[in-house]
Amino acid sequence: MDTLLLDREAVDANARMDEVTDAVSAAFAAYERGDARMPAKSYIDLPEYNGDFRSMPAYMDAGDWDAAGIKWVNVHPDNPQKFDLPTVIGTMIYSDPETAMPLAIMDGSEVTMKRTGAAAAVATDHLAIDEARSLGLVGAGVQSYTQVEAIAAVRDIEEIVVSDLDEAAIEAFVDAFSDRFDVRGGSIAEAAACDVLSTVTPSTEPLVSREHLGAHTHVNAMGADAAAKQELDPAILEAAKLVIDDHDQTTHSGEISIPYTDGTIGDEDIDAAVGEIVVGERPGRTDDDGITVFDSTGLAIQDVATAHVVYEHAQETGDVDSFAFVSR
Amino acid sequence: MDTLLLDREAVDANARMDEVTDAVSAAFAAYERGDARMPAKSYIDLPEYNGDFRSMPAYMDAGDWDAAGIKWVNVHPDNPQKFDLPTVIGTMIYSDPETAMPLAIMDGSEVTMKRTGAAAAVATDHLAIDEARSLGLVGAGVQSYTQVEAIAAVRDIEEIVVSDLDEAAIEAFVDAFSDRFDVRGGSIAEAAACDVLSTVTPSTEPLVSREHLGAHTHVNAMGADAAAKQELDPAILEAAKLVIDDHDQTTHSGEISIPYTDGTIGDEDIDAAVGEIVVGERPGRTDDDGITVFDSTGLAIQDVATAHVVYEHAQETGDVDSFAFVSR
Repeated sequence: MDTLLLDREAVDANARMDEVTDAVSAAFAAYERGDARMPAKSYIDLPEYNGDFRSMPAYMDAGDWDAAGIKWVNVHPDNPQKFDLPTVIGTMIYSDPETAMPLAIMDGSEVTMKRTGAAAAVATDHLAIDEARSLGLVGAGVQSYTQVEAIAAVRDIEEIVVSDLDEAAIEAFVDAFSDRFDVRGGSIAEAAACDVLSTVTPSTEPLVSREHLGAHTHVNAMGADAAAKQELDPAILEAAKLVIDDHDQTTHSGEISIPYTDGTIGDEDIDAAVGEIVVGERPGRTDDDGITVFDSTGLAIQDVATAHVVYEHAQETGDVDSFAFVSR
Repeated sequence: MDTLLLDREAVDANARMDEVTDAVSAAFAAYERGDARMPAKSYIDLPEYNGDFRSMPAYMDAGDWDAAGIKWVNVHPDNPQKFDLPTVIGTMIYSDPETAMPLAIMDGSEVTMKRTGAAAAVATDHLAIDEARSLGLVGAGVQSYTQVEAIAAVRDIEEIVVSDLDEAAIEAFVDAFSDRFDVRGGSIAEAAACDVLSTVTPSTEPLVSREHLGAHTHVNAMGADAAAKQELDPAILEAAKLVIDDHDQTTHSGEISIPYTDGTIGDEDIDAAVGEIVVGERPGRTDDDGITVFDSTGLAIQDVATAHVVYEHAQETGDVDSFAFVSR
């Protein structure tokens, strides 16, 4: 029985963004219902190499399908300069929960990008104003591209403003999207004034101020995924309707972790988990809401849900490599 | 940059037992010295499929080499009958700790067999009498084969007695080794009277009694790796020089877990961790020792050490499949 092998391009080709968004939405719902099993991320620190490994196993039952797997991923910031390799190199094993057969092994970094875009789309769909037409990006790196793809599938985005310190990164971004959107580089303030804002930087200090945001801007705070990271002025979190993906992860390593730890914000400032909104236990945007913020740290169930979509599609088309790891 | 792909046969072909035993010995030593990082095994229970997944990540630094990786493995007891698949289907990702590049992905079940044999060989080398010539096996399943290969590399084994309820399993075992050893089926008592005994069953109650053992028998208790498992009469543990692989794992899920939990034995009965013996902090067999027991539960660092040997050999020969998961 063969295991499918998918590199970055193959994952990309088999991950339809609307299907991934639906699957990630189902993952948030399963988690909220208690139909997901997700041990805490475990870390192996490698100070000798200025890096770390993380393992993210999960199982989820969406009702009409279920999925299991593990993402083994790292952060090695010296990789690009020293080895001409990406900082993050993920590998994902997607397994049949019924038999544990490894159905597919795929590039985990591409899975991460898709599922992160999908999480922003799920949150945006529930929290952005219906008539959102403009999207701001702070950060023009790899994650910014899937933000656009995913968010444009849930709102009729016409105008995009992208802000980055790296002019070449802005140019590449504008080139990539100029045929479909009115897209231009701009300041952080200009990006933040849009109807939807996604922050996708590795910043360790606030970049976006309260006064930059529009009156009804929905912010996807995607960048912070480690204890020292922060992209938003804590005043934004206090003012906003604040939605998180997971209490443990966000309070330990999300956008809210620094103000939560120093007591600037508390549990009373957290309005909902995204899963509560997806299942209808808490409301999404209401007429009373102004700024809304989604603090996303990334859950292992999002990876498994995304891998499910990729595998099902790849298996249908049959146009991918494979290897027989397991013989009957 | 290509990732090597190794199925069961390729792992077997590239895992020289003496090299694996040396590497596993180095892993025990690294763990003892504090040069290993090994988060606790994490479990995902799947009661709906009568199974579970386990993730076992680790990093170890042996001094002249280091290694990192993760084994994703399961136990699905219904697999053979329902799906014509093995109960245990492991997949191992072996990664370069310096860059996190996935160097190889390999059949994890074969890695488990090799590293388990190697652990028994390390313990046997330190704990069996020098002139050991006879080896007893209780259990003639897949693990029994690597026990023979590994132990015969550290002692001049001439005679083997194998005990199993399944006559066909005994026949296959005898067939496999009759050209190299004086090998025959026998009772548990006959197997236990040998100089070295390895128990490799999934038993949940004691099979081997105190009076079965020879005066200086060394016992490798390999089977128990879950809380309800047990192969030896607790009287053996009380009488023996008792060596474990890891305190947490053996007291929770090893051969000693049941008598340890009910108070029949305590920490005062545990004489050493195998790593303490490997590094010379505690003695192996001395003239005062009679029965010795090694309680092995299996550590993630053993898998990583074994994968290291397999990868290094496979890379040298170049005679394996590969796939480009990561593009520069």
